[in-house]
Amino acid sequence: MAKYLIVGGVAAGMSAAARLRRLDEAAEIIVFERGDYVSYANCGLPYYIGDEIKERERLVVQTPEALRELMGIEVRTANEVLAVLPETKTVKAKDLKTGREYDETYDKLLLAPGGSPVKPPIPGSDHPAIHTLWTIPDTDQIRAMVDDGKVKKALVVGAGFIGLEMAENLKFRGIDVTVVEMAKQAMNVVDFEMASMVHREVAMHGVDLQLDDGVSEFTPGANGGVVAKLTSGKTVEADLVLLSIGVKPNTAFIAESGIELGKRGHILADDSLRTNKEDIFAAGDAIEVMHPLTNKKTTIPLAGPANKQGRIAADNMHGEKPRTYNGTMGTAIAKVFDLTIGMTGASEKLCLAHDIPFDSVIIHPNDFAGYYPGAMKMCLKVLFSPDTGKVLGAQSTGYSGVDKRIDVIATAIKANMTVDDLTEIEHAYAPPYSSAKDPVNMAGFVAQNVLEGLIKTVKWTDIENAELSEYYLLDVRTPAECASGVMPGSVNIPQAELRDRLNEIPRDKKVVLYCRVGLIAYQAIRVLAANGFENIYNLSGGYETWLVATT
Amino acid sequence: MAKYLIVGGVAAGMSAAARLRRLDEAAEIIVFERGDYVSYANCGLPYYIGDEIKERERLVVQTPEALRELMGIEVRTANEVLAVLPETKTVKAKDLKTGREYDETYDKLLLAPGGSPVKPPIPGSDHPAIHTLWTIPDTDQIRAMVDDGKVKKALVVGAGFIGLEMAENLKFRGIDVTVVEMAKQAMNVVDFEMASMVHREVAMHGVDLQLDDGVSEFTPGANGGVVAKLTSGKTVEADLVLLSIGVKPNTAFIAESGIELGKRGHILADDSLRTNKEDIFAAGDAIEVMHPLTNKKTTIPLAGPANKQGRIAADNMHGEKPRTYNGTMGTAIAKVFDLTIGMTGASEKLCLAHDIPFDSVIIHPNDFAGYYPGAMKMCLKVLFSPDTGKVLGAQSTGYSGVDKRIDVIATAIKANMTVDDLTEIEHAYAPPYSSAKDPVNMAGFVAQNVLEGLIKTVKWTDIENAELSEYYLLDVRTPAECASGVMPGSVNIPQAELRDRLNEIPRDKKVVLYCRVGLIAYQAIRVLAANGFENIYNLSGGYETWLVATT
Ligand SMILES: Cc1cc2nc3c(=O)[nH]c(=O)nc-3n(C[C@H](O)[C@H](O)[C@H](O)COP(=O)(O)OP(=O)(O)OC[C@H]3O[C@@H](n4cnc5c(N)ncnc54)[C@H](O)[C@@H]3O)c2cc1C
Ligand SMILES: Cc1cc2nc3c(=O)[nH]c(=O)nc-3n(C[C@H](O)[C@H](O)[C@H](O)COP(=O)(O)OP(=O)(O)OC[C@H]3O[C@@H](n4cnc5c(N)ncnc54)[C@H](O)[C@@H]3O)c2cc1C
Ligand SMILES: CC(C)(COP(=O)(O)OP(=O)(O)OC[C@H]1O[C@@H](n2cnc3c(N)ncnc32)[C@H](O)[C@@H]1OP(=O)(O)O)[C@@H](O)C(=O)NCCC(=O)NCCS
Ligand SMILES: CC(C)(COP(=O)(O)OP(=O)(O)OC[C@H]1O[C@@H](n2cnc3c(N)ncnc32)[C@H](O)[C@@H]1OP(=O)(O)O)[C@@H](O)C(=O)NCCC(=O)NCCS
Repeated sequence: MAKYLIVGGVAAGMSAAARLRRLDEAAEIIVFERGDYVSYANCGLPYYIGDEIKERERLVVQTPEALRELMGIEVRTANEVLAVLPETKTVKAKDLKTGREYDETYDKLLLAPGGSPVKPPIPGSDHPAIHTLWTIPDTDQIRAMVDDGKVKKALVVGAGFIGLEMAENLKFRGIDVTVVEMAKQAMNVVDFEMASMVHREVAMHGVDLQLDDGVSEFTPGANGGVVAKLTSGKTVEADLVLLSIGVKPNTAFIAESGIELGKRGHILADDSLRTNKEDIFAAGDAIEVMHPLTNKKTTIPLAGPANKQGRIAADNMHGEKPRTYNGTMGTAIAKVFDLTIGMTGASEKLCLAHDIPFDSVIIHPNDFAGYYPGAMKMCLKVLFSPDTGKVLGAQSTGYSGVDKRIDVIATAIKANMTVDDLTEIEHAYAPPYSSAKDPVNMAGFVAQNVLEGLIKTVKWTDIENAELSEYYLLDVRTPAECASGVMPGSVNIPQAELRDRLNEIPRDKKVVLYCRVGLIAYQAIRVLAANGFENIYNLSGGYETWLVATT
Repeated sequence: MAKYLIVGGVAAGMSAAARLRRLDEAAEIIVFERGDYVSYANCGLPYYIGDEIKERERLVVQTPEALRELMGIEVRTANEVLAVLPETKTVKAKDLKTGREYDETYDKLLLAPGGSPVKPPIPGSDHPAIHTLWTIPDTDQIRAMVDDGKVKKALVVGAGFIGLEMAENLKFRGIDVTVVEMAKQAMNVVDFEMASMVHREVAMHGVDLQLDDGVSEFTPGANGGVVAKLTSGKTVEADLVLLSIGVKPNTAFIAESGIELGKRGHILADDSLRTNKEDIFAAGDAIEVMHPLTNKKTTIPLAGPANKQGRIAADNMHGEKPRTYNGTMGTAIAKVFDLTIGMTGASEKLCLAHDIPFDSVIIHPNDFAGYYPGAMKMCLKVLFSPDTGKVLGAQSTGYSGVDKRIDVIATAIKANMTVDDLTEIEHAYAPPYSSAKDPVNMAGFVAQNVLEGLIKTVKWTDIENAELSEYYLLDVRTPAECASGVMPGSVNIPQAELRDRLNEIPRDKKVVLYCRVGLIAYQAIRVLAANGFENIYNLSGGYETWLVATT
């Protein structure tokens, strides 16, 4: 009878335990969890604080009792693993309730200890108003403060996924929220112009987002609150502070075990999720994963990968169905008030950091047929290889349908598809769901045109970084459209008049065309190209992208 | 200067015209359209009748004037092409307003005449209360009757996509609706148990759906209405009848041209969308397409393929960017009241008809995280090759998220993915959008288990067609779940008690296990398998699928 030990009883660990039971009915399966809860929905915690999720018990997917009863899994909550001894195939554990320390041997061991929020060494950050959010007890504490009605002002440090989800949920509770972020943008994993949509959304909902700033010190404030001093010199008062600036792996307990760790303390595992020590496997937030686009190891602490890795680790621990984990490309999504922001694969930033040649398109299609009630514009950016056309990544913002396009493109990337393939994806179309040409097809068309030379593009950053004297900026929108605002220095020739007014356009200068989103400017470019203009460019994403990115 | 003629000014034709202009600014582009409108949203017509779309002008995406002004395309509405003469590269056309007939020569010709609704030869079907819906004038007529308030009862003949969309929209207008369908199910392109969800949905909304029945005769009825006599002997009174039983291609005008047509009159084109006659191309509803899963020609009259083919045809007419059309696999979707039903690739029926070996799984996952407010169960069926694991098709019903899963699986099929690949798709997960394991992953897991022999399944039809004496039907749900209904002849041993009650289960009989959806029964099967049971099966889709399919 095999004996499987698992350290960590949430996403990766408990998925592995459940799978192991299905593979091996006779085995002994013991899960060690230092906390009081297993199988809980970390991802739901912000929504419970926001009272969107009303019943606390909904956060717990399985209890130790149910796991024992239904699956015969022995779950030891409040039992912390203190050390792993590969030589004797033993773990040292401690019952946190009784203080008793004991050994447990294993045939196979899975390390799924996850991570914990980074607590930055800011002076004064041990103040009781300052919290992090990772576990149910964290949540209980924060929710109790909010329920008490004592939190009028909150400060969220870090504008990543969890930070912004918390900003939204605290706002829902009637709290004034300030978010401070060191970077120049929120959601650092996406490119700036996509994050700009988030900046606009949080501002519209009354959240005070302070970018390019950080907390240098906390001092006690009024009524049990704190005052945060920012590096910019500003101060923010808060009754509650949430630190959400990153995650570090919970691997201190294996420091002496000889299990190889990466630079930042993550466990190194191969593509079968084996560590360098025999019979010891690892999965979830605590490991480094291969990024299939950079072909480099990285860390992507997300629940989808953790769950999938847990199942694969179980298969390999059991051994009869060997399986490979093929890496994580960072598909992620967040709801930020009414906006959805999603991404998959490589961003511009990632490409630049890894010297991956890329080009990109930005389009603003309707989420579904424009004539069907409720259709709204979304923004979809697709990155691709200028050499092979291979799709490298996508980012999208909008009010519906973002998740669908991200998932489709994530599938396309997984399948090594090119932008030509995107044009052919046969999506499901009826007016409430899409258009005859889906946004994904459309991004494919535009990228195909770029690759095949029908159109050359410039990015809003190229314009921001250039002198106006270097180019002629041609606005081909209708005068009515221009009335709502134009780019400084632009000249307006509406597309309908363009064929008759070609002589007004300089032939000796770089001409940058724009319309609202790029479609009409593309048609205009085709007219100019046919008339001998060569130095002509479409502003990627058009006026819309420029506007949101620069204001 | 090239001269392009295009017959048909809606989806395929107008997409081609627009693309041709972008490829060739100098060309002469003439579009012939026998109707009064081009570029209109056929797919939106039912919703305008239902007053979901309120402004009639929203149905028209582009006008002839705008197309001329913006794209320099000459659109000749109310001009019908009467014949094509490949030898002289001429079309014969008629101005329907003046009656003038004239010739027009071409360098390249695109045939995109689409189809028209089939009008069955039912006696009495020339009555003015009897309509079909394809064009804006059709729509105007039907809407005027409805707006007049004279339509109290309507009869829809045919329960396909358009028929059911019309049933919904007429119902929205306060009309009593009966739908008569010859087949034993609505939406004949999906498998029965999926269509059952539609049957339930329309019944819940008060639509009287008569399956397995047809209209044998119409006779005039009261107040300008008709009485439909059904083959079953029933009669249905109606103030308005909508016939929606299929589409036939508008290809009579090329009967003499020598252009090859298929058995049912569709144009035969190769994968570059060329007909057998030089410089004549064809696209849209009027052509036969290759089905990538059967590798046989078929007809799939849908707007997505028509639009995409139009663009490809244009590229090949222009010639500089030769492109291939890689077939149509029938991805389709419809909203039926609150329910969405979608499908892609091969159904069971299609597999059976083409001798394609297949297996299938049916799951009922949540559309997004169950603990997040508003999550609902969806049903997802995935077909795959029992030999290679290649994904063959998918069908889904539900209240949200159906379109996403269908599009993802359509992409997976396009990429020749297997069910193993489905398990690895890295979807975007946050509680409002999905679960850590997306329904698509989950279908992959279950199918993988089937392929790898962890589980054997039977279908609800196997149970329906077998004698109860042939197997032991084991219900592993909790007593509370059983209280809401059980399958006849089943024995209940809750999963939590199973390990202690193995001796109650016969070893000499086929044992079919079920739970609500299949998940717990799978766990039970793993317990039985470990205890030496061999002849054990999971009821695919569980009690839920059996219930909806058999009631
Ligand atoms: C507020 C919040 C929102 C999130 N939202 C999303 C989201 O929307 N989408 C998404 O994909 N991801 C989200 N995540 C991330 C996701 O929850 C994690 O990626 C996932 O839980 C990681 O799974 P894991 O099993 O690796 O680690 P965890 O789920 O963290 O589980 C590890 C467990 O191991 C225990 N443990 C650690 N060390 C020991 C030890 N020595 N002995 C015993 N037990 C130990 C810990 O107590 C912990 O319970 C969110 C996380 C949080 C906190
Ligand atoms: C009510 C309704 C709802 C629909 N809903 C959906 C949906 O939700 N999703 C989906 O994918 N599809 C849907 N469709 C189908 C979709 O509209 C068609 O697949 C698509 O329009 C086909 O495009 P086409 O260009 O081939 O033909 P059409 O759009 O039919 O255009 C062909 C045009 O050619 C003209 N023509 C024909 N012969 C001649 C001639 N000899 N001379 C001059 N002109 C000629 C016709 O008048 C017609 O306007 C729906 C159709 C209808 C009617
Ligand atoms: C609750 C938990 C223990 C469940 O683990 P699990 O049993 O592997 O997962 P699920 O309940 O999703 O079920 C998946 C299994 O059921 C099978 N299944 C699902 N539907 C099925 C059906 N209709 N018929 C047959 N089998 C089915 C799948 O094949 C899979 O089994 P496999 O892995 O052996 O192939 C684990 O997911 C967990 O702890 N989750 C909460 C923690 C968490 O993930 N937090 C982060 C996100 S908020
Ligand atoms: C209206 C109609 C004439 C438009 O045709 P179209 O111009 O090819 O289509 P779209 O408006 O969707 O634009 C697509 C083009 O714009 C380009 N484009 C879209 N967004 C862009 C952007 N932001 N920047 C640059 N180019 C862009 C695409 O690349 C594509 O051009 P390409 O084909 O040369 O690659 C045609 O689609 C039509 O008649 N539709 C209505 C009829 C119909 O489809 N009915 C059935 C469904 S209800």
